[in-house]
Amino acid sequence: MKNIYIIGVGLIGGSIAKDVKKLNPEITIHGIDSNNSHLEEALELGIIDKKAAFNDLKQADIVIVSIPVDATVEMLPKILDAVSDDALVMESGSTKSAICNSVANHPKRRNFLATHPIAGTEFSGPKAAMEGLFQGKTNIICEVEKTAFKLQERALAIFKIMGMRIRYMNPEAHDKHIAYVSHLSHISSFMLGKTVIEKEKNERDIFDLAGSGFASTVRLAKSSPDMWTPIFRQNKTNVIETLEEYIQNLTAFKDFMKHDDFDEIYNEMRNTNHIKDILNGIK
Amino acid sequence: MKNIYIIGVGLIGGSIAKDVKKLNPEITIHGIDSNNSHLEEALELGIIDKKAAFNDLKQADIVIVSIPVDATVEMLPKILDAVSDDALVMESGSTKSAICNSVANHPKRRNFLATHPIAGTEFSGPKAAMEGLFQGKTNIICEVEKTAFKLQERALAIFKIMGMRIRYMNPEAHDKHIAYVSHLSHISSFMLGKTVIEKEKNERDIFDLAGSGFASTVRLAKSSPDMWTPIFRQNKTNVIETLEEYIQNLTAFKDFMKHDDFDEIYNEMRNTNHIKDILNGIK
Repeated sequence: MKNIYIIGVGLIGGSIAKDVKKLNPEITIHGIDSNNSHLEEALELGIIDKKAAFNDLKQADIVIVSIPVDATVEMLPKILDAVSDDALVMESGSTKSAICNSVANHPKRRNFLATHPIAGTEFSGPKAAMEGLFQGKTNIICEVEKTAFKLQERALAIFKIMGMRIRYMNPEAHDKHIAYVSHLSHISSFMLGKTVIEKEKNERDIFDLAGSGFASTVRLAKSSPDMWTPIFRQNKTNVIETLEEYIQNLTAFKDFMKHDDFDEIYNEMRNTNHIKDILNGIK
Repeated sequence: MKNIYIIGVGLIGGSIAKDVKKLNPEITIHGIDSNNSHLEEALELGIIDKKAAFNDLKQADIVIVSIPVDATVEMLPKILDAVSDDALVMESGSTKSAICNSVANHPKRRNFLATHPIAGTEFSGPKAAMEGLFQGKTNIICEVEKTAFKLQERALAIFKIMGMRIRYMNPEAHDKHIAYVSHLSHISSFMLGKTVIEKEKNERDIFDLAGSGFASTVRLAKSSPDMWTPIFRQNKTNVIETLEEYIQNLTAFKDFMKHDDFDEIYNEMRNTNHIKDILNGIK
């Protein structure tokens, strides 16, 4: 295992590259990115050893695809076409059904492993990449039985050195659960930011009054629309369902307030408080 | 200035006590709390020097009231009745109109200063108190002109050693703005937590899939219902208005998704992204 190709040298691809390089200095990290200035930046930052092009993929032992999920669906079949019979191709998208479907009947399906490392920040691009981002985090692997056993092993060896916990799940279950614990959070945060910005035209006032609580709830509203629009499109049905339930819960809360039913307001909060225990351990 | 009485030795009262004591070791901090085990705890933790009772308040140079806002409205007139003519009484509640109204015609109105230090965590009780909680944070002072000038100075001297920035505002403006940048965040977070818990009956699954983004958006759902129920009650009109706008924005987002208008989804996120710049500087 000598040559790893990272397609998409942003936050996730770049962070994987940093961990792999640190733990296996003998490996050569090749970078491919549609954004040439990102590629130059990744080279300058030492995230990749060499710039590469699509045609070089036949040299790859491992290809890691970390690009927006719509681009993944489009590129993944072509990447599998391009690699050798012994190569492992992985991707790290936040949706799994559409991606797995895109290569379901590909002759090199057994060269592919679908993964979703649950880690990240609200920032993007090579500068956002960091060592140790995945340490102690969960990596969800889908349809593991469809990947060649030797290539599974190769992937797991990498996740192990990165310090990740592995969970196996089918793509449909992944997309449904992740709509709740990730996609909905992003929308809640974006719309909270929008609501406040619309009201508080004088931004200096927001800054003066906002505390750490506000900063925490709107943090995800800094996220990249280029990355998140295709995620919402691919996971549309699940995300709409979560939004309907969330809006229902907010409306009920508002109605309790309107009717001065503050006992119920108290109960709503008390019953949700045990999220403390659930969250213990999430950084 | 020798004797400071803290009524309510929780997160805010306890943190103020710690800062004041550290910076003025010669001052005696007296604690009053309806919860005697909190009072014992505050004494053991060195947050207060002595336990005190309501009748001792006539000895106070400064009284700091940090109890739920409904209790503040009830107690504040009695506290002003009890203190000497030279004492400064301050409180730190998250609402200001009801509190200022409760003492508007009190003969000792000039002994009172209404403040809202914008700082805190999702935890409560004496154990949650910490040194330096207010460093660099904003303190909103309402109706400053109604407080005796000498007592304003006494208060500002304390806020200065605590490292707080002062902003002056009328109670109505405070309650309106804070509904957006604080109260709405709490409801958004509580209802997000509720939505996910309801769906994900198997809590281990939430834990396994949830990343730092989810943890950040639901952090405030750990907050105390005892503190927050009276805040929502007192700021009912403003909070309902923010909730209506938030629900409207979420519904619009959902409808764009239903109609496959992902250009608009992209724009919604892009237009909110500049919250980055607004948030710079908030810890």
